[in-house]
Amino acid sequence: MAVSTGSGDKRFIRTAIRLAREHMRAGDGGPFGAVVVRDGRVLGKGWNQVTSANDPTAHAEIVAIRAAAARVRSFHLHGCTLYCSCEPCPMCLAAAYWARVERIVFAGTGRDASQAGFDDDEVYRELALPIQQRRLRHRQLLRREVLPVFDEWNAKADKVLY
Amino acid sequence: MAVSTGSGDKRFIRTAIRLAREHMRAGDGGPFGAVVVRDGRVLGKGWNQVTSANDPTAHAEIVAIRAAAARVRSFHLHGCTLYCSCEPCPMCLAAAYWARVERIVFAGTGRDASQAGFDDDEVYRELALPIQQRRLRHRQLLRREVLPVFDEWNAKADKVLY
Repeated sequence: MAVSTGSGDKRFIRTAIRLAREHMRAGDGGPFGAVVVRDGRVLGKGWNQVTSANDPTAHAEIVAIRAAAARVRSFHLHGCTLYCSCEPCPMCLAAAYWARVERIVFAGTGRDASQAGFDDDEVYRELALPIQQRRLRHRQLLRREVLPVFDEWNAKADKVLY
Repeated sequence: MAVSTGSGDKRFIRTAIRLAREHMRAGDGGPFGAVVVRDGRVLGKGWNQVTSANDPTAHAEIVAIRAAAARVRSFHLHGCTLYCSCEPCPMCLAAAYWARVERIVFAGTGRDASQAGFDDDEVYRELALPIQQRRLRHRQLLRREVLPVFDEWNAKADKVLY
């Protein structure tokens, strides 16, 4: 597998921007597009579909990552670059880590997203706060009841790591 | 809509733990379960399906949020509590913010997850770092080409906010 070198970056970021523009105009959701690329081949495309699909997780990057993983039949996207019309929100950035993508290339900034009415910056700030200080209330209970589940996982001989 | 009060927390966190255990044993993925509840009713259930579905975003909480949003045909889950067998990773926590859930109740901690081999803590640390310091490489380019898309969004009369 060739390591992504950055050649083609302009081409693919323009694909992401085009998806953002076209699907915003179509009323599919917010103005965001993304593509997952490996070795110069587009493995998955995505655009924001939150409001049209009634799916709060259907950000462009999540959709593109899911599409690419389905296409290559793997839960890891080693060697892939995620092209995004805008800097990923924390949900999408964390998804990129879980998917093991190699690089992220983006055009607009989180500040651009905020100025367009999206809360990316605030969600980044919230995630960095201790649980007690977040505006989303958290409660922990019954930890002792879940620990045996983790013990069983740790001992499980046929587990698939990810 | 009644505001969630915390009554029933033990019952629903046990549902999340049961889902974690059963679907781990079934080989569906990691040992994690989640349920979205409003007014005492389960709107969506989820369990980790990363490895069985080849979907790196298929964490229990994401699956439960998507299921609940589909069920109520809304991209917002106001008044809902997200019960998780373990403290959410950054992807899932950010998804909870985007979905506007009201509370999160969890059993195991992020440290428990890390000790079971999951990178939650590391992803939290990475997200808090400036882009230049993250291990996942980032590149920004062609910002000027996406700004008109945001301008068009800002001026769009029929946009659906989320």
